[in-house]
Amino acid sequence: MTATTTTTTAPPDIVRVAYVDLVVTDLDRARAWWVDLLGFHVEATEPNALYLRGYEEFVHHSVVLRQGPIPACARIGFRVRTPDDLDLAERFFGERGCPVQRVPAGATLGLGPAVRAVDPLGFTIELVHEMQRVEPLVQRYDLRHGASINRLDHVNIAIPDVAAAYDHYTALGFGLSETIEDTSDGTLYAAWMFRKQTVHDVAFTLGSGPMLHHIAFAVPESHNILGLCDRIGALDQAHYIERGPGRHGVSNAFYLYLRDDDGHRIETYTTDYFTGDPDHEPIRWDVHDERRRDFWSNPVVPTWYQGSVGVLDLDGNPVAVREQDPTERTVTVGADGLGVMVET
Amino acid sequence: MTATTTTTTAPPDIVRVAYVDLVVTDLDRARAWWVDLLGFHVEATEPNALYLRGYEEFVHHSVVLRQGPIPACARIGFRVRTPDDLDLAERFFGERGCPVQRVPAGATLGLGPAVRAVDPLGFTIELVHEMQRVEPLVQRYDLRHGASINRLDHVNIAIPDVAAAYDHYTALGFGLSETIEDTSDGTLYAAWMFRKQTVHDVAFTLGSGPMLHHIAFAVPESHNILGLCDRIGALDQAHYIERGPGRHGVSNAFYLYLRDDDGHRIETYTTDYFTGDPDHEPIRWDVHDERRRDFWSNPVVPTWYQGSVGVLDLDGNPVAVREQDPTERTVTVGADGLGVMVET
Amino acid sequence: MTATTTTTTAPPDIVRVAYVDLVVTDLDRARAWWVDLLGFHVEATEPNALYLRGYEEFVHHSVVLRQGPIPACARIGFRVRTPDDLDLAERFFGERGCPVQRVPAGATLGLGPAVRAVDPLGFTIELVHEMQRVEPLVQRYDLRHGASINRLDHVNIAIPDVAAAYDHYTALGFGLSETIEDTSDGTLYAAWMFRKQTVHDVAFTLGSGPMLHHIAFAVPESHNILGLCDRIGALDQAHYIERGPGRHGVSNAFYLYLRDDDGHRIETYTTDYFTGDPDHEPIRWDVHDERRRDFWSNPVVPTWYQGSVGVLDLDGNPVAVREQDPTERTVTVGADGLGVMVET
Amino acid sequence: MTATTTTTTAPPDIVRVAYVDLVVTDLDRARAWWVDLLGFHVEATEPNALYLRGYEEFVHHSVVLRQGPIPACARIGFRVRTPDDLDLAERFFGERGCPVQRVPAGATLGLGPAVRAVDPLGFTIELVHEMQRVEPLVQRYDLRHGASINRLDHVNIAIPDVAAAYDHYTALGFGLSETIEDTSDGTLYAAWMFRKQTVHDVAFTLGSGPMLHHIAFAVPESHNILGLCDRIGALDQAHYIERGPGRHGVSNAFYLYLRDDDGHRIETYTTDYFTGDPDHEPIRWDVHDERRRDFWSNPVVPTWYQGSVGVLDLDGNPVAVREQDPTERTVTVGADGLGVMVET
Repeated sequence: MTATTTTTTAPPDIVRVAYVDLVVTDLDRARAWWVDLLGFHVEATEPNALYLRGYEEFVHHSVVLRQGPIPACARIGFRVRTPDDLDLAERFFGERGCPVQRVPAGATLGLGPAVRAVDPLGFTIELVHEMQRVEPLVQRYDLRHGASINRLDHVNIAIPDVAAAYDHYTALGFGLSETIEDTSDGTLYAAWMFRKQTVHDVAFTLGSGPMLHHIAFAVPESHNILGLCDRIGALDQAHYIERGPGRHGVSNAFYLYLRDDDGHRIETYTTDYFTGDPDHEPIRWDVHDERRRDFWSNPVVPTWYQGSVGVLDLDGNPVAVREQDPTERTVTVGADGLGVMVET
Repeated sequence: MTATTTTTTAPPDIVRVAYVDLVVTDLDRARAWWVDLLGFHVEATEPNALYLRGYEEFVHHSVVLRQGPIPACARIGFRVRTPDDLDLAERFFGERGCPVQRVPAGATLGLGPAVRAVDPLGFTIELVHEMQRVEPLVQRYDLRHGASINRLDHVNIAIPDVAAAYDHYTALGFGLSETIEDTSDGTLYAAWMFRKQTVHDVAFTLGSGPMLHHIAFAVPESHNILGLCDRIGALDQAHYIERGPGRHGVSNAFYLYLRDDDGHRIETYTTDYFTGDPDHEPIRWDVHDERRRDFWSNPVVPTWYQGSVGVLDLDGNPVAVREQDPTERTVTVGADGLGVMVET
Repeated sequence: MTATTTTTTAPPDIVRVAYVDLVVTDLDRARAWWVDLLGFHVEATEPNALYLRGYEEFVHHSVVLRQGPIPACARIGFRVRTPDDLDLAERFFGERGCPVQRVPAGATLGLGPAVRAVDPLGFTIELVHEMQRVEPLVQRYDLRHGASINRLDHVNIAIPDVAAAYDHYTALGFGLSETIEDTSDGTLYAAWMFRKQTVHDVAFTLGSGPMLHHIAFAVPESHNILGLCDRIGALDQAHYIERGPGRHGVSNAFYLYLRDDDGHRIETYTTDYFTGDPDHEPIRWDVHDERRRDFWSNPVVPTWYQGSVGVLDLDGNPVAVREQDPTERTVTVGADGLGVMVET
Repeated sequence: MTATTTTTTAPPDIVRVAYVDLVVTDLDRARAWWVDLLGFHVEATEPNALYLRGYEEFVHHSVVLRQGPIPACARIGFRVRTPDDLDLAERFFGERGCPVQRVPAGATLGLGPAVRAVDPLGFTIELVHEMQRVEPLVQRYDLRHGASINRLDHVNIAIPDVAAAYDHYTALGFGLSETIEDTSDGTLYAAWMFRKQTVHDVAFTLGSGPMLHHIAFAVPESHNILGLCDRIGALDQAHYIERGPGRHGVSNAFYLYLRDDDGHRIETYTTDYFTGDPDHEPIRWDVHDERRRDFWSNPVVPTWYQGSVGVLDLDGNPVAVREQDPTERTVTVGADGLGVMVET
């Protein structure tokens, strides 16, 4: 893919990351996991798809799960401020030489007209303005269950070139909240970027890619995360827990990483901070600071440095993965905590 | 005061409510309360003033406490997106016939040039773009104490005409998140309006005014609020607790209302929801729904329906209060919970 | 009833309060409340009875709900250390002129042979050694729900003579942990007494009686109680909440009082303290200390000072209630918090 | 040491584990750690010793820290029910051929007359009845800090023969609550035994010994433990955290293991369950069940399977350590979680 580095058009005004469209290989099993265990609300069902949202989402969905042959991330969705931003989006990606498509309202249940593009990083993204408003469930504590999922908070992508991702999302108008870098030579290992007034809508993890690293959902308080761990332990399904719970250095959020049966990595996440001031300045962590990924310095599980699933192009075909080595893991595992984790 | 109801200029782009400038009658006593008990960080001190911020505020202060003869709210501060918004602010308030002043950088420690105005509701507000950036303290858990104050969340004002306040802040570009109204006749008892992507920056309580009703500070989790209650109990100072803790119907936040020694009403507040979507729709509560102010229907203390302290004009003189009756209290106390609270 | 005040026999070795046997007027409705909402585990069902336990109870039940014509407390059960303690129990109550019965194993599902007596205070109590052991559910977080009920913690009874209750339970070998008294004249308004190593197994509230005041169940943490309030609010059933949540002065526990549809008062309760040392000394609260019943000085709802339901004699007939006035309410309401609660 | 296996005398009636007497190499540094960071109350100081207690302890101390040349556990203290139990203790240990000493009141500040013995496992233990009562601090939330230490909960010892420890403490009248064993061959890897009505007063970890493994302190709720981690992270002292936080399989408690500067291992611990019923039955975990030590199957750090510090004999001299291999670690590391921890 060739991406031009200049553009003469204003980028679309992206409000926030809004949804992910994922492929799972067993929809019934995925429903049990995402809905019964994790705690999503089912907004709509189709024979081959489930439309899910959190209890503080006022629009149709933040996750689509579709039955398919291999686990994948089909699309990452962003909401734009006005219908006109779709035109800006088409031009923005077109000027970068990206494949771009317009899709009509209803191409996805609950969504209005959209623009799809394969971005310079290799991810299929979708921009939409209209999202169907649905019944508020914020205070339906009688329905909340699992980890009491509030809303999609962010998407984290694995890519071989973090600096390129930073440049691309900067062009799209994203702000930078935090980085992990080698402060001695400037190598960028990870970055967190935002449109909405939280620490991020999208973050980048250095690694083989393009792959989805994880998607994160905001929950009310840390005890909701501990309670989820307890339920997973009770079900003797602790293999679903990959890392945590713990406090992030980056973002200050309390976190837990899970893997579903298809390998999708999901984070439950709570209490990061406000980034909406006009001159918000990024916090830069050195890659050798053991607290950057776990503020209590608990070691990062090596598998965590890998992407979770591959991504699909506009035709729904898998995008080839470019291998990347070294990664943040290479320079840090062995420095994390008391010991080294060795994969079995 | 005469306020025109039309304007030809765009309003300034307000980012958020940013600070309050308060008068206290005993600065040492106020420091003990706001800093030692409540948990603020002291950013700067002057002989007659204290500059306070929460641990997730990256700028100089969100509260100024100044020694003075009577408790009052001297100014409510809003941050604007660009320096040019100060010009827009001057024009916006000028067109409404409001007294307007420009004040130079440094008129308040830590602040750049500002515009002050007495708004059509009778409150002195200040708009500023430049705020001095200071050391991030988000993760200084070694310093956090008290209720672990994160940041100023909102200001609530008491006024005799909620509809006028709604109109004024709508003109200023604020969105509406929730209301309390008589759904049978449309009487507006209270409204919550926002610029940042939370439930509110400013809210209105029907009552004698213009008066400050309360200022609210975000804290990390509900246990931080319970812990503050426990410390207050241990000190045998429970008169500082006016109402709560509890869960709000409006905003869904977990709350506690305190009164300091001067009668300033302070709320500690946590976990409201995201309002940043472009078509965010307000939630309307009927004034007779007992859950609107406490989702568990615990009765509202009658004193709570009164403003806390008066406000000052541009010269620092007290603004006359216009009495208002009936209020939300009139139509609801007796309907709250199991009984009626009678003042002693 | 005539009670002798001396005895020549050792009292039975009571381990703890173990269960209550209650009458409800609509068993299906009671099941929805106790099981679905409050969070009990159903151990067994019969056409006219439900046997419930908490998740940290290893024996058959701590609550029996039986269909009947009027809400009542049929029996309060205590577990004794050995089978021989049943003989001691029979003698202990017999020497006091109390009606005493032996009941065979299985008279109540899950219980071995028992001794029933109407105690000098007018309550039917039952002592049992054998209780059927059942599957441990401590870590069945997949089943825990509602307030995550752990275990029966204590029973609180309303009686016109607290000093007599104190004397009686002292004779039964109970220790005293806390009191509410008029420290100027020694009037005893309430007392907390224990056999197990917590603050109490039984407590006394001055009032018309004999009546059950409330039964309390231990839950893991305060957030379990807040979560129950939120669910009740979501169901728009806040009339179930009578008082709280809050922190007790007495016992230091975090609490919430509920009333079920039959008027049974239930407390959810967490984190009191260890009382097992041989020389444990009581803490004495003055009746005028506003923190005694709520450490944050939130007012006590007047209805709370009344018993919840009447008690039954050995034949299942209601025991006459002796009216008592004044009560703790008489001397304190108006002194609590900011105002006075007036019943509507 | 030769221990006889029979005895003709009743054991002393031990109420609970009551204190530990520890040697630290830098008392000022230890004070900063135990008091300022961890959250103990200082009851008394001497030039070379500190006497500490938790906020729910009503007696003089539960920890003594003494300045000395090498880190060690000088004594583990148990409280007995009556003064006569000291005679029983002297006989009990004498009959087992253990070195026994009587020490007068005041030999340790705050303690009455005591019996010291080197038990058959090689640990110096002390039994005492009288402990000086001090001011209750349960509700001094204004003083509570750090992890809000409530009380000493248990002591865990490392020994090469868990079955012998089980036999010894059974003879002393302790009940068994849980075990880790190889259910295929009956090998006992660990056991938890109690006198007070919690999961344990003392537990055994298979390993080189006699060594102290850890001492555990009850705290109110899980957020107190998370808050301690956050403060340690803020101070950039994460090497103090050895393992956790997490949920135990055994005991169901929420836990965190710390090491102080001398290598003493301290656990903060909350919400285990009641064990006071007369027929309480142990829960037996298979050594291969990954949830036994962390219910969420997070891997156990290998260092955790080692004792923390050595023990002293009656003359204060170090007791020789008998090496033990294999341990639970040998048969389980590699089976824990996703990977294997390798020491660096």
